Amino acid sequence: MPELRRNPVTDQWVIIAAERVKRPHDFRVPREERRHTACPFCGGHEEETPPEIWAYRLHGTAKNSPGWWVRTVPNKYPALTIDDLLAEKHQGIYQTMSGVGAHEVIIETPRHLVDFEEHPVEQVEEIIRMWRDRYCDLRKDPRIRYIQIFKNHGLEGGASIEHTHCQLIATPRVPKSIEDELAHGIRPYREETGRCIFCDMVSQEKYARERMVLEAEHFVAFCPHASRFPFETWIIPKRHREDFGAISEYEIKSLAWLLREVIERLARALGNPPYNLIVHTSPVNTAADSGYHWHIEILPRLTRMAGFEFGTDYFINPTPPEMAARYLRESKPPELRPH
Amino acid sequence: MPELRRNPVTDQWVIIAAERVKRPHDFRVPREERRHTACPFCGGHEEETPPEIWAYRLHGTAKNSPGWWVRTVPNKYPALTIDDLLAEKHQGIYQTMSGVGAHEVIIETPRHLVDFEEHPVEQVEEIIRMWRDRYCDLRKDPRIRYIQIFKNHGLEGGASIEHTHCQLIATPRVPKSIEDELAHGIRPYREETGRCIFCDMVSQEKYARERMVLEAEHFVAFCPHASRFPFETWIIPKRHREDFGAISEYEIKSLAWLLREVIERLARALGNPPYNLIVHTSPVNTAADSGYHWHIEILPRLTRMAGFEFGTDYFINPTPPEMAARYLRESKPPELRPH
Repeated sequence: MPELRRNPVTDQWVIIAAERVKRPHDFRVPREERRHTACPFCGGHEEETPPEIWAYRLHGTAKNSPGWWVRTVPNKYPALTIDDLLAEKHQGIYQTMSGVGAHEVIIETPRHLVDFEEHPVEQVEEIIRMWRDRYCDLRKDPRIRYIQIFKNHGLEGGASIEHTHCQLIATPRVPKSIEDELAHGIRPYREETGRCIFCDMVSQEKYARERMVLEAEHFVAFCPHASRFPFETWIIPKRHREDFGAISEYEIKSLAWLLREVIERLARALGNPPYNLIVHTSPVNTAADSGYHWHIEILPRLTRMAGFEFGTDYFINPTPPEMAARYLRESKPPELRPH
Repeated sequence: MPELRRNPVTDQWVIIAAERVKRPHDFRVPREERRHTACPFCGGHEEETPPEIWAYRLHGTAKNSPGWWVRTVPNKYPALTIDDLLAEKHQGIYQTMSGVGAHEVIIETPRHLVDFEEHPVEQVEEIIRMWRDRYCDLRKDPRIRYIQIFKNHGLEGGASIEHTHCQLIATPRVPKSIEDELAHGIRPYREETGRCIFCDMVSQEKYARERMVLEAEHFVAFCPHASRFPFETWIIPKRHREDFGAISEYEIKSLAWLLREVIERLARALGNPPYNLIVHTSPVNTAADSGYHWHIEILPRLTRMAGFEFGTDYFINPTPPEMAARYLRESKPPELRPH
């Protein structure tokens, strides 16, 4: 029997379509032959990208030369650009703003033939440190209202470049999705109960257990009750933390282990699934404390959004999150894992 | 210079990414070899679908036999089903509803090797009549709050079956997207001005002309100012019409011609673009007049939604709608058009 479930944070409903239940093997995505072995993101090709913004590199090596292990460069085709005046225009019922912001690429490694889950955990820590450094630098621009850190993996996940990387787009407005979470979920819940809805969600998930995937010292991973996508997984700090930028060294280490493990389990269950990894956090440079609770959403892209989803904003998910979580909990490493 | 534009109905912003401008030939999608010539949707294969709900057929021919020209059947794997009790359940912060509703497939023709724009205009009229008939039948069920008519074309558009068809899903709740349009755009605008925002949009587009594509007696087609997708095109009734179900015979004829022409022009400009066609209309079985103005949105699926779009609900569109509209206005039929 199909079921409609409400996401209490966004007020978005999903249909868990029991007539179409799909298990991991229905989705298994073969790992494609990797095509390129030298690209502009590879070590030794630093001249082929726009000049670097920030890199972790060996002492004494020059900018835009080898010797780095995580490197941030401007996106060659930026969606938003920093060198603009913030101007607004009204024409009848329409409103336009200049596209002020920033669009950066975080190259996770100089090595081409590596996927995220193949990084050593120390490398994942460095990637998260780079997220934090770029986040904290960009928020200094008072025109910026939100900083979206994300990663697209695989063709269906929207990755146009194979070499593993993350991206960061800073926007001059608080995104609608974050405004919706604050307006429909976070603020009304706080007014009613005095508590944070994400904190209560973590408690309820830990108690119910059926959607839990994994726990680390400072974070939990679970498949959300109203998962829009099969095997959708959220990673949430256990203690109330509004702002990703304030992540501590202890939390970075805990998150790096958990995040790498979750992505590895998804890859074990699903082959090489395309996915989007999205950091949700508090707006920046706005007045008061927002009440937000930052977290990461991992969205495997195994189903397609089509007319119904765009028309209604209801997603149809053929894999109940309780089933997805069970597979991810029980996922064991293969005896021999070729590298 | 990139630009942010606000959709005044949904309060959704899009980024028109001038650094990445794409013209029709950047998107051109080759027409794939059609693989099957006999499928469960073909004439003569009526036994392979669930029993038909409604069909336009030759007088004297039996149900579930040949002789039809437009035929509606239940979806074999329904997202929602009609034979359920409407029940609600609360567990802590979560809310669940039974998946009451309907999911039907409208087979547009018994012929396999035909795309929408290849139908004679009289056939498109019949398809629209079938939309209306099924819509008006399903709204009789008082549990239904919205009826979503849509069409997915092409693999990237989410069509799993090649034989040209539309779908209809009836839901027990008003979708979030429609609630958003009513709450953020339609009602506040009416309170402020006393007018319908869609009516004013039609006036403004007809006056500005730069985004207009085509006009028929009762409808206009234009590329919306805050287009989320390259070549996104909306078709709107010129006179204020809340409810799709009340479409008149005159309007059906006018719409059939315009809709077919718009899809044909998209195909001429873009080859065989995947797209979603979505009918937006007023909720049903709710109390008062909603103030909605029904219309059709055609979303060519030439770009991918990825981490940024899911994180922020901002779309990045590399083709300014003014440019898309110019191409669609100037689109001429080729001298020889093989059929």
